[in-house]
Amino acid sequence: MDAKTALGVAQWCPGDVTGELRFPGAAVSTGAPAMSVAQAAAAGAGSLLIGIAPPGGRLPAHWLPTLVEAASAGLDIVSGLHTRLGSFRELVAAAAAAGVNLHDVRHGDWPRVTGTGRKRTGQRLLTVGTDCALGKKYTALALARSLQARGVPATFRATGQTGIMISGAGVAIDAVVADFLAGVAEQLSPDNAPGHWDVIEGQGSLFHPAYAGVSLGLLHGSQPDALVLCHDPSRTHLDALPGFPTPQLADAIEMYLQAARLTNPAVRCIGISVNSSSLDGAAWRAYRARLEAELGLPVADPIRGGVEALTAAITTNKENLS
Amino acid sequence: MDAKTALGVAQWCPGDVTGELRFPGAAVSTGAPAMSVAQAAAAGAGSLLIGIAPPGGRLPAHWLPTLVEAASAGLDIVSGLHTRLGSFRELVAAAAAAGVNLHDVRHGDWPRVTGTGRKRTGQRLLTVGTDCALGKKYTALALARSLQARGVPATFRATGQTGIMISGAGVAIDAVVADFLAGVAEQLSPDNAPGHWDVIEGQGSLFHPAYAGVSLGLLHGSQPDALVLCHDPSRTHLDALPGFPTPQLADAIEMYLQAARLTNPAVRCIGISVNSSSLDGAAWRAYRARLEAELGLPVADPIRGGVEALTAAITTNKENLS
Repeated sequence: MDAKTALGVAQWCPGDVTGELRFPGAAVSTGAPAMSVAQAAAAGAGSLLIGIAPPGGRLPAHWLPTLVEAASAGLDIVSGLHTRLGSFRELVAAAAAAGVNLHDVRHGDWPRVTGTGRKRTGQRLLTVGTDCALGKKYTALALARSLQARGVPATFRATGQTGIMISGAGVAIDAVVADFLAGVAEQLSPDNAPGHWDVIEGQGSLFHPAYAGVSLGLLHGSQPDALVLCHDPSRTHLDALPGFPTPQLADAIEMYLQAARLTNPAVRCIGISVNSSSLDGAAWRAYRARLEAELGLPVADPIRGGVEALTAAITTNKENLS
Repeated sequence: MDAKTALGVAQWCPGDVTGELRFPGAAVSTGAPAMSVAQAAAAGAGSLLIGIAPPGGRLPAHWLPTLVEAASAGLDIVSGLHTRLGSFRELVAAAAAAGVNLHDVRHGDWPRVTGTGRKRTGQRLLTVGTDCALGKKYTALALARSLQARGVPATFRATGQTGIMISGAGVAIDAVVADFLAGVAEQLSPDNAPGHWDVIEGQGSLFHPAYAGVSLGLLHGSQPDALVLCHDPSRTHLDALPGFPTPQLADAIEMYLQAARLTNPAVRCIGISVNSSSLDGAAWRAYRARLEAELGLPVADPIRGGVEALTAAITTNKENLS
């Protein structure tokens, strides 16, 4: 789960990935060819991208020699961690000597403004979750692409380091000073044309004891017209938190709608996005049919069949939602 | 309302206030004698404390000459704004030349940790509100003092700049990077003796489109056993936000309890703290009687009669709450 940055970039920007640098004992691979720093430089790689996002976002000290080696070999360093690359003198010196850049995508230069609650023009969709790290970014990327394929103007709005690396823009909302959470979220999807959809990547979960504040500030600032709830049926409790059971989907929908109504009373949940990797084909079809009947909403797995059922719900309801 | 830092320090630390420096046209006074920087220095003042907290927490540029004058006159500068005093070269130079210190109380050195949701020992009370700036800090200070007067071990835990200036400790929770909101709130009231009460100053409001994320992160990290809801009956809508009506008290209690149960299923609302300055004596007594009957909870105005009714509810319910 901590390798989601590497996996996301490999999935959504495969043409940009030259190879993969793995430490001994690495449990996860993107499937890209294994390369040393020297091999990557020789193969024409332009950057070393840190693909791991440990909880708390700190850079482990034992990674530093590899980063220095990469900078010295002429590679930019791209990081989405809270720790700033520029805080390591050795790395700054190596980058300066080699003439390469250090990119801290989690630290943008967003205006420090507080939220206003002012209603903006255009349509907005936010992906939300019963837990962290179960498909909110993937679902938002897939929805934006699917809307665009139907000729609906849509923009993916990244709120995390991986989404920023994939799309080239956005804000790492969890790195914003708390006072400006909703204000920066408001800036992320400014006034837009009436038929345009901003598809905003959700963060955290309202049900998570560490991150619910971030989720709520993003929800209020995004003022979504539509929510898509993301879920993984294999999680009976939150990841790494056995004391925190995963909420029932109907309860989660109601909680998200209740919170979202503060800045958009017309908000609706238009469907469920499921990470069904724990289910075989028959189990997934049965689970999907049961959920659709229970909730009266379309249910899709973006990886297993795509998000067309959700996109259809967005475009069908467009008049109602506007 | 923006002068709440000055008013809070004058109210709770009157022995520490030498005088008041007012700009022309100032609408509010703490009642302390008016003094120029030179007069204050001559009268033995040790610091110039910035008593205004504008929304967004930025330092207006036209204040700088006065701050430089104060530093040059030998006064420390104490600020609770987001803007760091150290970001003004002229002021840094003046402070260095005069040998005085610049104190940015909003920027503490708290560990950057994410929340765990782990239940801690000891009892916790959090003040929450239907809006911002209506008595959460004052109520918490009064409750801590009242508990101590009854012989109940209690500690006020500041979460904003004014509370930190008054109590000499705490964290400006709205200045924390959003990822660490709940984690830092957990650190603020660590494990304590079973009979001890941490009385935690609330921030913002779950109903505020700019600050609800901060309020929720603080609520989850505080894992309160008891909530006191603060309210001002003169506000029909949130301060400066006509489009956002103030919630009904019963709805507000239910929303806060629902959110707080995530990290403490045993949480209770033990009473209401009212800022009744808009009501005359008879209207206040009638309002209090009606609320107490409607909600089945004690109602108090800390300034008009004190918080004994709330303290009694805390100590009476102590066994139930533990």
